[in-house]
Amino acid sequence: MLEKLKQEVLEANLALPAHGLVTFTWGNVSGIDREEGLVVIKPSGVKYEALKLEDLVVLDLDGNIVEGNLRPSSDTATHIALYKAFPDIGGVVHTHSPWATSWAQAERSIPALGTTHADYYYGDIPVTRRLTQQEITEAYELETGNVIIETFTKNNIDPVAMPGVLVAGHAPFCWGKNADEAVHNAVVLEEVAKMALHTLQLNPQIDFIDQYLLDKHYLRKHGPGAYYGQK
Amino acid sequence: MLEKLKQEVLEANLALPAHGLVTFTWGNVSGIDREEGLVVIKPSGVKYEALKLEDLVVLDLDGNIVEGNLRPSSDTATHIALYKAFPDIGGVVHTHSPWATSWAQAERSIPALGTTHADYYYGDIPVTRRLTQQEITEAYELETGNVIIETFTKNNIDPVAMPGVLVAGHAPFCWGKNADEAVHNAVVLEEVAKMALHTLQLNPQIDFIDQYLLDKHYLRKHGPGAYYGQK
Amino acid sequence: MLEKLKQEVLEANLALPAHGLVTFTWGNVSGIDREEGLVVIKPSGVKYEALKLEDLVVLDLDGNIVEGNLRPSSDTATHIALYKAFPDIGGVVHTHSPWATSWAQAERSIPALGTTHADYYYGDIPVTRRLTQQEITEAYELETGNVIIETFTKNNIDPVAMPGVLVAGHAPFCWGKNADEAVHNAVVLEEVAKMALHTLQLNPQIDFIDQYLLDKHYLRKHGPGAYYGQK
Amino acid sequence: MLEKLKQEVLEANLALPAHGLVTFTWGNVSGIDREEGLVVIKPSGVKYEALKLEDLVVLDLDGNIVEGNLRPSSDTATHIALYKAFPDIGGVVHTHSPWATSWAQAERSIPALGTTHADYYYGDIPVTRRLTQQEITEAYELETGNVIIETFTKNNIDPVAMPGVLVAGHAPFCWGKNADEAVHNAVVLEEVAKMALHTLQLNPQIDFIDQYLLDKHYLRKHGPGAYYGQK
Repeated sequence: MLEKLKQEVLEANLALPAHGLVTFTWGNVSGIDREEGLVVIKPSGVKYEALKLEDLVVLDLDGNIVEGNLRPSSDTATHIALYKAFPDIGGVVHTHSPWATSWAQAERSIPALGTTHADYYYGDIPVTRRLTQQEITEAYELETGNVIIETFTKNNIDPVAMPGVLVAGHAPFCWGKNADEAVHNAVVLEEVAKMALHTLQLNPQIDFIDQYLLDKHYLRKHGPGAYYGQK
Repeated sequence: MLEKLKQEVLEANLALPAHGLVTFTWGNVSGIDREEGLVVIKPSGVKYEALKLEDLVVLDLDGNIVEGNLRPSSDTATHIALYKAFPDIGGVVHTHSPWATSWAQAERSIPALGTTHADYYYGDIPVTRRLTQQEITEAYELETGNVIIETFTKNNIDPVAMPGVLVAGHAPFCWGKNADEAVHNAVVLEEVAKMALHTLQLNPQIDFIDQYLLDKHYLRKHGPGAYYGQK
Repeated sequence: MLEKLKQEVLEANLALPAHGLVTFTWGNVSGIDREEGLVVIKPSGVKYEALKLEDLVVLDLDGNIVEGNLRPSSDTATHIALYKAFPDIGGVVHTHSPWATSWAQAERSIPALGTTHADYYYGDIPVTRRLTQQEITEAYELETGNVIIETFTKNNIDPVAMPGVLVAGHAPFCWGKNADEAVHNAVVLEEVAKMALHTLQLNPQIDFIDQYLLDKHYLRKHGPGAYYGQK
Repeated sequence: MLEKLKQEVLEANLALPAHGLVTFTWGNVSGIDREEGLVVIKPSGVKYEALKLEDLVVLDLDGNIVEGNLRPSSDTATHIALYKAFPDIGGVVHTHSPWATSWAQAERSIPALGTTHADYYYGDIPVTRRLTQQEITEAYELETGNVIIETFTKNNIDPVAMPGVLVAGHAPFCWGKNADEAVHNAVVLEEVAKMALHTLQLNPQIDFIDQYLLDKHYLRKHGPGAYYGQK
């Protein structure tokens, strides 16, 4: 079942080490079939170099395993929470990529300091609050999803225009219209996180880029007036 | 048409990922045939690993497509503006290489702190002012070229002796007598940008190198008295 | 003798350059057979690319060579001291991996700033005191082991839950239930050390992660209630 | 002539890109035959991937070309000055390796902050004064050698125990008993320079390591009592 989606999710998972985003098994990608209401995700703790199509796990949106002999990623509940709350996304990725994770650990959102950022993330990339003891103890991975959703709801952020977040003290989650785009956004986040740190070291007083430059670059690549790339 | 130039431009584009200057498709190189008044440039958003000679786009200096089935780089108007204003250059490259981009985002020019810099860039590598809202809205890529040219004109900088610039809040543009040399200068810029940040972290009060050391190194490699390399 | 252990130790040594942890021969891994009371260790100063199974040296816990034609690692006495003091460990690794070594040189313990750290190291990764002149002169490598043990004893740290240490002015030692896990922990330490520096640069006032998040992540991977990975 | 020395010098030059020490042609290695009084050095500006044995240039200690069809490295006069002043060295290397060059540009000597440093460099790695305008104008490369020699003479530094130096505003020179060891020392310098910057970022007040630890590590590897490596 879902052979095409599985293939996309497999390739997206293998793209993580290819892009240098993961050490060992510190990352996972999922994709969703919205019509079937089924999620395909990496199994927990399996090495990328050994990962095969038949290792992927299929779950419904209640977290029940529909197909697969292995345990799904320990972060599965976070992925499912995001799919439920953000109806326009089709792929989710979690990594501990080092530059983005450093911002998550510092509990700072990444300011929009340049057009590289603006090409993909329409504003500052937010950081969540810390989870409470109760949230961590009772339903850690689900509550990780919930605190992401809360961050977007409270601050009225559109998850399509802001396809990533930093979980405080933890690491980033990214998403996109499918698994491949989610990984693409994770690569961008890592690059943007690295450059933002060095930018602030060079000029701690630097201001965000102007709103109209942010608009220009984001809309050059996204939406009906986009003119970047081929038709 | 322009087969030799196309080959040079293709190779120069492929050199960008080989030198680690680009993530995804974040870069483009062009070359000009001055006699014909024609520019060859990378198509927009095409992956380097898939780029072929016949994908390259040929334009005249009014921006009209003379040959090619794909859209040219979205930065084409910037390239053309530079070719028109700087008659001695034959190749232009744009990247978001991370160290140089960090300086561009910090809106700081890169001071000449050592002989590596002096071997290629005869003075501080300038940063432009920010573009205005009107410039961005009306003709963004053209005005990006114009603000580069303004920076060189106002400060009386010779673009042959200073083959690169940082566009504020954006990223670097570099150039050279041909596409290959433009990429060469982009590699140098990235290396110089990295070392300048670390130098300032080690010694925030460090002074520029002496003018006579700058002269010595630049002129050892450039001009009639050059003695670096083979004849 | 000990062919299986030798194979593990050989592979663990070869994993050091594969993970980018060593320059030249700056690292060594050993493993122990607890029943036989014998340690297998890399010979001193032999290049990884030339290292063969028969080059490994077998010693008893008094440091006597039982098998092998080459000198054992100059750090052998440190390894043996750790095996004697920490009865539950089966592999030891020493490297000069650059990020962890920077913390060791700075004589700072690495604070637990995120879940990457918490997944493997249950608390701050400690740094030893400096060795005294007498300790260095009389029995340097043995005393390096002793100061590690002292650090764990005085601060009541469990070496199973804290599988690594920074030796002041020197570099890290890590361990694990076998040679492979010791190297695994050394890779994690290097990654955690890098991210902790960047985290502190972004937010010098950042607090340690909450104890319950540390508990959650460490216990998600370790102990009877662990649910990360496959059964 | 000097076929064995040429082979050593060729391999040492090719080791520079293999160790990531050079961009383009920014580096050169030479070796000397003390009996013949002849130096073998890389030709100027030739790419490493194209470098062949017959491209190497042989010069006497007055700088006369004895064999070779290409121009020698533009830094040849510096190499020769070092061979004349330091009779116990057999190989010299110059690179613009980025971490060491950042220290040279910052005009700071690299303090001995750990045992990695102490294993190869017996004390702080010195930085020269700036060259004067007259020195640069009249005999730049020779005076670069002279200011290195002056730094060692004035501070009573033994070039055998301190096989490298930072030239202010320029980059490092290293040496050793032959070309291979010179490159080895250049690799160590780069690693030590990187770690020293990060150490100071973590702890700006950190003190040099104790003299007896410096002694222990240096003498563990060098001199009659050395016990590192195989006999």
